[in-house]
Amino acid sequence: MTEHSVVHNTFVIERTYNASPARVFSALSDPVKKRRWFAEGEGFVIDEFTTDFRVNGLELTRFRPVGGPPMRNDCVYQDIVHERRIVFVYTMMIGDKRISSSLATMEIVPVGDKTQLVYTEQGAYFDGADQPKNREEGCRELLGKLEEELQNHP
Amino acid sequence: MTEHSVVHNTFVIERTYNASPARVFSALSDPVKKRRWFAEGEGFVIDEFTTDFRVNGLELTRFRPVGGPPMRNDCVYQDIVHERRIVFVYTMMIGDKRISSSLATMEIVPVGDKTQLVYTEQGAYFDGADQPKNREEGCRELLGKLEEELQNHP
Repeated sequence: MTEHSVVHNTFVIERTYNASPARVFSALSDPVKKRRWFAEGEGFVIDEFTTDFRVNGLELTRFRPVGGPPMRNDCVYQDIVHERRIVFVYTMMIGDKRISSSLATMEIVPVGDKTQLVYTEQGAYFDGADQPKNREEGCRELLGKLEEELQNHP
Repeated sequence: MTEHSVVHNTFVIERTYNASPARVFSALSDPVKKRRWFAEGEGFVIDEFTTDFRVNGLELTRFRPVGGPPMRNDCVYQDIVHERRIVFVYTMMIGDKRISSSLATMEIVPVGDKTQLVYTEQGAYFDGADQPKNREEGCRELLGKLEEELQNHP
């Protein structure tokens, strides 16, 4: 690692949900639902979650692992196609340190009475502070939490 | 092409400029200089160029090829390390249609008394409206215009 370094990486996660595109889109865009599956979670304290789901709208999540440092996710929506596509950029911070910026694309595809979600994340990881492998794992967990949300709140 | 489609692509362009990192960074961040090499150009009309060069700051460029449709580049700075790194997201529009979103990383590396710029663009191209090959070509032209800026305004 040099003093300043960037690692670029792209990963794709595909999941099929037993729900309509309308329900999946709602879970991705409704502030109450989104907070539930995206921000809340055992072992985390949420200090702030505000979202403005429209193109150029901001979504701010400030949270802490219990006993850990404050973290922050600054997201800006780039493109929204109702029930079909959501594109956003987000930058992650630990304390005052920016550790990564990512462009994320969610493609929402109707498959019979189910919905395929194709999640593509194109990330830039700064100064060795985070790794693509960890990020991909974290995103897989989140997309699993989205499945629970759809099951538990039909 | 389906009704909604996204093509993801990453390209990297490396250039070495006969100028210090301080001068290259200044040309990338100073509003007057940036407008000159980035926005202005033969065959284009600039309708608006405003920039707020800081993390979370916006840069808006509205322009038209002579006789062509209005175009728009909405940029948000994600990470800035003085004289070393600039990361931004930008979404391109033709008329009211968003054609792409990209995460761009500029790594600024001192090499003797010159400066290497490593430009990495991770892009998502929407609904067949633009192609990675064209974008890469356009970025190569812009980085050539940056070279002219550095030569002509020492």
